[in-house]
Amino acid sequence: MKHLQLNADMGESFGSWIMGMDHEVMPHVHLANVACGYHASDPDVMRATVRLAKEHGVTVGAHPAYPDLVGFGRRSMVCSPQEVENFVLYQIGALDGICKAEGMSLGYVKPHGALYNDMSRDPEIFSAVMRAILAFDPALPLMTMATRDTSAVSDLAAQHGVTLWFEAFADRAYDGAGRLVSRRERGAVHHDPAVIVEQATRIARGLPLIASDGRELVLHADTLCVHGDNPESIAAVKAIRSALDELAS
Amino acid sequence: MKHLQLNADMGESFGSWIMGMDHEVMPHVHLANVACGYHASDPDVMRATVRLAKEHGVTVGAHPAYPDLVGFGRRSMVCSPQEVENFVLYQIGALDGICKAEGMSLGYVKPHGALYNDMSRDPEIFSAVMRAILAFDPALPLMTMATRDTSAVSDLAAQHGVTLWFEAFADRAYDGAGRLVSRRERGAVHHDPAVIVEQATRIARGLPLIASDGRELVLHADTLCVHGDNPESIAAVKAIRSALDELAS
Amino acid sequence: MKHLQLNADMGESFGSWIMGMDHEVMPHVHLANVACGYHASDPDVMRATVRLAKEHGVTVGAHPAYPDLVGFGRRSMVCSPQEVENFVLYQIGALDGICKAEGMSLGYVKPHGALYNDMSRDPEIFSAVMRAILAFDPALPLMTMATRDTSAVSDLAAQHGVTLWFEAFADRAYDGAGRLVSRRERGAVHHDPAVIVEQATRIARGLPLIASDGRELVLHADTLCVHGDNPESIAAVKAIRSALDELAS
Amino acid sequence: MKHLQLNADMGESFGSWIMGMDHEVMPHVHLANVACGYHASDPDVMRATVRLAKEHGVTVGAHPAYPDLVGFGRRSMVCSPQEVENFVLYQIGALDGICKAEGMSLGYVKPHGALYNDMSRDPEIFSAVMRAILAFDPALPLMTMATRDTSAVSDLAAQHGVTLWFEAFADRAYDGAGRLVSRRERGAVHHDPAVIVEQATRIARGLPLIASDGRELVLHADTLCVHGDNPESIAAVKAIRSALDELAS
Repeated sequence: MKHLQLNADMGESFGSWIMGMDHEVMPHVHLANVACGYHASDPDVMRATVRLAKEHGVTVGAHPAYPDLVGFGRRSMVCSPQEVENFVLYQIGALDGICKAEGMSLGYVKPHGALYNDMSRDPEIFSAVMRAILAFDPALPLMTMATRDTSAVSDLAAQHGVTLWFEAFADRAYDGAGRLVSRRERGAVHHDPAVIVEQATRIARGLPLIASDGRELVLHADTLCVHGDNPESIAAVKAIRSALDELAS
Repeated sequence: MKHLQLNADMGESFGSWIMGMDHEVMPHVHLANVACGYHASDPDVMRATVRLAKEHGVTVGAHPAYPDLVGFGRRSMVCSPQEVENFVLYQIGALDGICKAEGMSLGYVKPHGALYNDMSRDPEIFSAVMRAILAFDPALPLMTMATRDTSAVSDLAAQHGVTLWFEAFADRAYDGAGRLVSRRERGAVHHDPAVIVEQATRIARGLPLIASDGRELVLHADTLCVHGDNPESIAAVKAIRSALDELAS
Repeated sequence: MKHLQLNADMGESFGSWIMGMDHEVMPHVHLANVACGYHASDPDVMRATVRLAKEHGVTVGAHPAYPDLVGFGRRSMVCSPQEVENFVLYQIGALDGICKAEGMSLGYVKPHGALYNDMSRDPEIFSAVMRAILAFDPALPLMTMATRDTSAVSDLAAQHGVTLWFEAFADRAYDGAGRLVSRRERGAVHHDPAVIVEQATRIARGLPLIASDGRELVLHADTLCVHGDNPESIAAVKAIRSALDELAS
Repeated sequence: MKHLQLNADMGESFGSWIMGMDHEVMPHVHLANVACGYHASDPDVMRATVRLAKEHGVTVGAHPAYPDLVGFGRRSMVCSPQEVENFVLYQIGALDGICKAEGMSLGYVKPHGALYNDMSRDPEIFSAVMRAILAFDPALPLMTMATRDTSAVSDLAAQHGVTLWFEAFADRAYDGAGRLVSRRERGAVHHDPAVIVEQATRIARGLPLIASDGRELVLHADTLCVHGDNPESIAAVKAIRSALDELAS
């Protein structure tokens, strides 16, 4: 069975402001989504994060975003596909420059926040991100949301010749379409570690989850998003990693 | 005789603001110093500028600066060498990402404005810029000021293994040390096209200029900085280019 | 008959970048919408613009926008009403601080670009802007779009106790609802000076325009938006001002 | 005896990044230096900070800085006096706008970081800051460093008609001139709470400290700078406040 890779957002500090417990979470993940200066991070933070990833043998991915530092890239902005293509290229290139100083290279691209969501909703934005990847390095996979039916984005990616990595969540409830239940609804976020680990292993084994509409939902996922914000989430990452390693052994 | 290359700052527009007559000057230069978003430019402007350079067979150089958009990178900032190394890498990488979308690659690095000046005054800043270049691509030359005695920076560059390209000015008066006479002083800037072309050809032929202290000054220059700000400067660029092409033929 | 006030966007330069012909247009308008640093302008530009307005006896209005310099405030951003209220207050206050140095005070508020449009579409954003005005100075009028039926915004403003100034355009075609015809459609923008002056005087006299659906459209407007981007638009401003002054005399 | 006022930097969070323990330190200080968006803070953070100050009856001061978010305003920038005057006005005005929404008004101005230091060294920068204050509200005191001999800045302030508030530090060693010993030197920062409280009470009583050169040093201070970064500094603030309150009773 394919090992589900754990990915986490990293390098989200900025200047004098610290965010995230990168040193605690890095040892337990496979993939580090490194912010590129548009929603978080700066060249010094990026350098330190890439070095930390290298120490732990973790693959570095670019985590480009809308240009919205104060909003942490979480606010959708009406940008043209051409603008998106170019600012994604800019951010990928910038992180790649930093990687070179540490003898590393980029392993994939995962858009951040509102750009990640907008890309899923709008094929023009999705294509713009893919054009940036193709221009930079066609071998770089693009991480996007695993849902019940991913045929539309899979077709689009196949047309462009871009590899997709599908991402699932162990700590979030899904609706019948395989989309995340909004955080504003009850039960949208799992807090019980046992439930989180159970959801992670079901995804890893290809077993169905129960969606919010009561239907079974099978997610075909390459990677699982985990968080390193606080001690509780670090504990969850370790538990998930142990469970997945055990499955794979 | 080696042909003196003409370089000009390009891609200095930003968002809705236009600066410079890039379309008019690009056909006449060899090297385009493209702003990287810290003092000017944005991903869309960078893309258009790189495309324009490609159309005219012009080499693209990275033109990194201090993070000071409102001050156009002309205000010195007290940054640590490590900060300089990392933000230069960030900017070089970002422009390289844009270049890839146009099938281009970077040809050299020329720091901008206050960073260019601070680098000349402070070996620690000079070394920081060189470390960024070495990390990114050791083959990229670094453009710096031609003065009477360039042995200090030449030694420093040799220690690092970085190639220097020395830059001279055809429209500026020099002092005895081979530094530019301050713009606040009379006669600092040449306006007569004949004088400008004469200075350009003397530099190209290795002939001495007369410095402001009356001494002869020979500048060993690889490239000449020209400007594309207005119709007068475009006319000067054309006249210089014609004169240099005639010398070389 | 009430004199229709001419308003124009001013102070849209930024750092080293010049935009607009403020010196040419200022003598001919009544109201200067001064950018506050979020989509254009900087403290030095704001200072110079306020001084210029003072010299010509022009009222200064705050022209707050989304935080999007590279996009010139033209890209809609999904901000919460609370965010809008606070960043409008910030921008109004900042410009008021600059005004104090020139012995001026603010006369009104006109949101810019995407914020102006979003406010018209979304009562929550409209209310957020009004709360900022009420907190700062309840006597400041808010400029918004004159349409066929302004009862909804008028009611909302009356509930808050905010005065509205309705704005019309002399160089744009209107649809049946009294909204601007999209620039992407034919005939959306008038270029013939005679047509522009005719539309201005009809609006000033309360006479109907012919909307794009063929219906008559009466706009109750307090002010007319004019532009100072280029010599043609400056000529149009002068022609409109002459025509309106003649009407009023 | 005059009560020494405690001041602390507040509102230093930015967007999603939290900095400082404002809720813990606010109850114990008299003066809150509120960041204005150039080195830290944003309109939402400013609003929340002003509201918190109001709840605790704390006076709000503007804490303007160089435009350097990533450097937290700690890096000196070569700005002209005119630039300084205008961006200080901009920041003061912006915070005043936010204050109005909470029924508060500004009580004083304390420049931040590198601007605070540069102002002390350069009378032109000092005068520029005073011109901004005079333009905004001549009644606002300007906080600056208490040193052995403050006659130069006192004379300058008297010429301008600006009130100075002198600030001392309880946790830092002073040199013979009454300047802070550099943090790079041994013994520059006091960590022992007893030493800190002792220094605070000596300053409050007008008793001499022992400078690093062994000489006695009397600082005439109006206010004492305290910090709310971590539990240790909060404990120190409480201890200092208790000691000062006891002195005053």
